[in-house]
Amino acid sequence: MSRYNRALNFINDTEVYMANKAVVVYSGGMDSFTVLHNAIASGDEVYALSFNYGQKHSKELTIAAKVCQDLGIEHKIVDITAINSLMAGSSLTTDSDEAIPEGDYETDNMKSTVVPNRNMVLISMAIAYAVSLEADKVYYGAHSGDHDIYPDCRPEFVEAMNAVSLIANYQAVEIVAPFLKSSKGDILAAGIEMGLNYADTWTCYNGREKACGKCGSCIERLESFALHGLTDPISYE
Amino acid sequence: MSRYNRALNFINDTEVYMANKAVVVYSGGMDSFTVLHNAIASGDEVYALSFNYGQKHSKELTIAAKVCQDLGIEHKIVDITAINSLMAGSSLTTDSDEAIPEGDYETDNMKSTVVPNRNMVLISMAIAYAVSLEADKVYYGAHSGDHDIYPDCRPEFVEAMNAVSLIANYQAVEIVAPFLKSSKGDILAAGIEMGLNYADTWTCYNGREKACGKCGSCIERLESFALHGLTDPISYE
Repeated sequence: MSRYNRALNFINDTEVYMANKAVVVYSGGMDSFTVLHNAIASGDEVYALSFNYGQKHSKELTIAAKVCQDLGIEHKIVDITAINSLMAGSSLTTDSDEAIPEGDYETDNMKSTVVPNRNMVLISMAIAYAVSLEADKVYYGAHSGDHDIYPDCRPEFVEAMNAVSLIANYQAVEIVAPFLKSSKGDILAAGIEMGLNYADTWTCYNGREKACGKCGSCIERLESFALHGLTDPISYE
Repeated sequence: MSRYNRALNFINDTEVYMANKAVVVYSGGMDSFTVLHNAIASGDEVYALSFNYGQKHSKELTIAAKVCQDLGIEHKIVDITAINSLMAGSSLTTDSDEAIPEGDYETDNMKSTVVPNRNMVLISMAIAYAVSLEADKVYYGAHSGDHDIYPDCRPEFVEAMNAVSLIANYQAVEIVAPFLKSSKGDILAAGIEMGLNYADTWTCYNGREKACGKCGSCIERLESFALHGLTDPISYE
């Protein structure tokens, strides 16, 4: 092989290994924690993006920051609390007196936790971040368990957001929802398969030292572990 | 006509006149000022929405507030300055040292004023506001003069945003861009036809007492007035 051809092969090999940048919408919860690792495993250069939208507590964000630090990836938290002035009636935000519902994820029970148009707002910002980074993907953790409750977690929403995201800027950004057709249990199974430690996640709607084990979010989490005959590594009250 | 029928007719007539709610993305500039009046003229109950995204000055927002007060319509200003941490390289924001470009709206010159994915972020928030108000429309002032410069002002963007906006929430929200196929001159002509006073608008990128008359925005504004043989009612330096 000539020196020229060796040089050419080296360049080609180098290009094969050049990582694409990707933004991951990462809340600190189980699903987006798995998505984050899925993106890293796919070889993308990952930029994690979290939002402070006035959640009643910041335990998720604290654990998200720790995970990113341990992984050595860039993590940005954007404070979008101001937009709560547009979003009346959500019990996830601090300016509401409404109590967090206990019990399972029944549609009627959980509707009060729906912030209007939340995913479109968050994904739009993630796309903005992707464009300024010259990243070509935005990952987010939609899954089938939310399809009936949140219109902006359904496959048709992801498809329509993708269509607009590909043309909204000079640079096309693809919306990737790797677990769109998976249940929360499937996501956990994929994560366990990848060797992930779910002690590094926070799910509970309440922000006390230990998870409450009673809110819809805790119950769903515990059910996912039980389904796989596993014990949740976090502590409950 | 029986008393019953008269009552029935009264109810039917009342229903005909029941206004739908609409959110108008309103910056205080000429285009969105005309869109605001277009929405009011269409009979919608209008809620004006402005964004403070860290513009170098707030003259547009001050005049927007005054206009809404005079019209007796609700006006909300949402502070989304925090999202500038995602948007490097724009000369419209305060954390940039880049000077505002002078001269006309040549594509190369103006590209530095493009905030990545801005319209998707703003429209997403306007949709959130619409959903919480139970409004079924979001108006915004895209026009043909921006098609070549801003990808998120093109008809295909508006169409794709509409597609996602109709399914992203329990409530469908329509994106209305009444001047999508009009030039800035056409918009001015429509406004003059409606009897609007453009002294109640601010266009200049600089925030001094009088408009500079030199930035791309001023030049484009002056050209629109000249095209119609009209004198711009605002003062220039």
